[in-house]
Amino acid sequence: MTDPSDAPATVTAGMVIIGNEILSGRTQDLNVAFVAKELNAIGIQMLEVRVVPDITHEIVAAVNALRTKFDYVFTTGGIGPTHDDITAEAVAAAFGKEATYHPKSYAILEATMIRRGIEFTDARKRMALTPEGAEAIENELGVAPGFRIENVFVLAGVPLVAQAMFRAAAPLLRRGRTKRSRSIATRLAEGTIAAGLEAIQHAYAEADVGSYPFYNAPGGHGTTLVVRSFHESDLLGAGDAILKLISDLKGEALSDERS
Amino acid sequence: MTDPSDAPATVTAGMVIIGNEILSGRTQDLNVAFVAKELNAIGIQMLEVRVVPDITHEIVAAVNALRTKFDYVFTTGGIGPTHDDITAEAVAAAFGKEATYHPKSYAILEATMIRRGIEFTDARKRMALTPEGAEAIENELGVAPGFRIENVFVLAGVPLVAQAMFRAAAPLLRRGRTKRSRSIATRLAEGTIAAGLEAIQHAYAEADVGSYPFYNAPGGHGTTLVVRSFHESDLLGAGDAILKLISDLKGEALSDERS
Repeated sequence: MTDPSDAPATVTAGMVIIGNEILSGRTQDLNVAFVAKELNAIGIQMLEVRVVPDITHEIVAAVNALRTKFDYVFTTGGIGPTHDDITAEAVAAAFGKEATYHPKSYAILEATMIRRGIEFTDARKRMALTPEGAEAIENELGVAPGFRIENVFVLAGVPLVAQAMFRAAAPLLRRGRTKRSRSIATRLAEGTIAAGLEAIQHAYAEADVGSYPFYNAPGGHGTTLVVRSFHESDLLGAGDAILKLISDLKGEALSDERS
Repeated sequence: MTDPSDAPATVTAGMVIIGNEILSGRTQDLNVAFVAKELNAIGIQMLEVRVVPDITHEIVAAVNALRTKFDYVFTTGGIGPTHDDITAEAVAAAFGKEATYHPKSYAILEATMIRRGIEFTDARKRMALTPEGAEAIENELGVAPGFRIENVFVLAGVPLVAQAMFRAAAPLLRRGRTKRSRSIATRLAEGTIAAGLEAIQHAYAEADVGSYPFYNAPGGHGTTLVVRSFHESDLLGAGDAILKLISDLKGEALSDERS
């Protein structure tokens, strides 16, 4: 038995996607999947996402709901230089603070503009706005920094920039227990495997046993069974029980992968 | 002047994405963009999305928050035959109802199973579960129906199936005023165009004037300026003002598209 106090705790996160362009269908969000995977790899469980429009009180409500519910919140979108970029002010409002120019972000931006021979307009200065007390999150792309205030991390909306900012923020995050997964694919239909799978879920109550049908994949239809757990013993036990179930049902495991 | 009572009203929607597989990053959601675009085309504005895990009280809370806030709610995911498919029960609970077998859905499922020579197991019968009083939403793929209860539409998670169900549900929706959009792309940077763009937003207060940078696109970086409005006059006026702004800034409009 490991002393529970030595074990890393469960660490949780939520995400707020700020963008009319996602809600209108103009832009396909790619940031949720990226951030979810990265968090997962360092033992942080993403448990909720909200997509909200570019409206201050909606951003404030979503940030406040999730920052009190989870250990961390990541926002994407709305930190550029144009009038529709209102995330810094909205996140400041969520914390009851003013947004002001962050000295370090301002200096980075100014240096970037001088280097590129671009005028440092009032609009571009807006990219240095952060809630009072926030910390800048620089990024290797050399563009406007994101920022962190308490447990809220504010990232850009453009995926390449969001990814660079996330990588810069990751070392600031407390790592938790890592959930690992084992995925087993079969041609058996969900309805065929459901009863046996439910019994396996009951036997491994701390694991998440999921079932995901696939259609028109190369080679035809089928089901992927996924076991996710903090415990290696669940991946072994529930995974092997799934292999036996597939075999008992005269099916075949097409793949058996860990991640 | 048109009598305002003759004009179609603004119709709004929210969406609840049910799925651990989206929150873990295993699966890239494609349903938000699809539903958003389809709704947009029939004059329904999507104003919020929540992604929640396969946990009953989280689904109940999200459905209840959005069904009271918007005209319609669409859910995707969790309506298959396996133990992790809990959407029907959760949506029933959100309405204070029980989930029971829907006679028509049950009959469709049973006929499908007989036709395909598949056993109609208890697990497969689960796909006929709906809240009492719900209406089945059949689909051209001939698989388990989705359902509607009051203003909540419950669709499958697999995109092809969700799309078929949405198309079947669309005729049941009240159409609202259609927001149209005009998108103008330029190589000018956001920071260059920001001040002029803000003035245009102020001049056309009922339009949404958005600015979206693009990177590493064929031909290089730039910005897409988007005007969205219920009024054709805004698309003409604000759009032409953007063209003039680009020209005044010695830039060039790369494209000018309506949708």
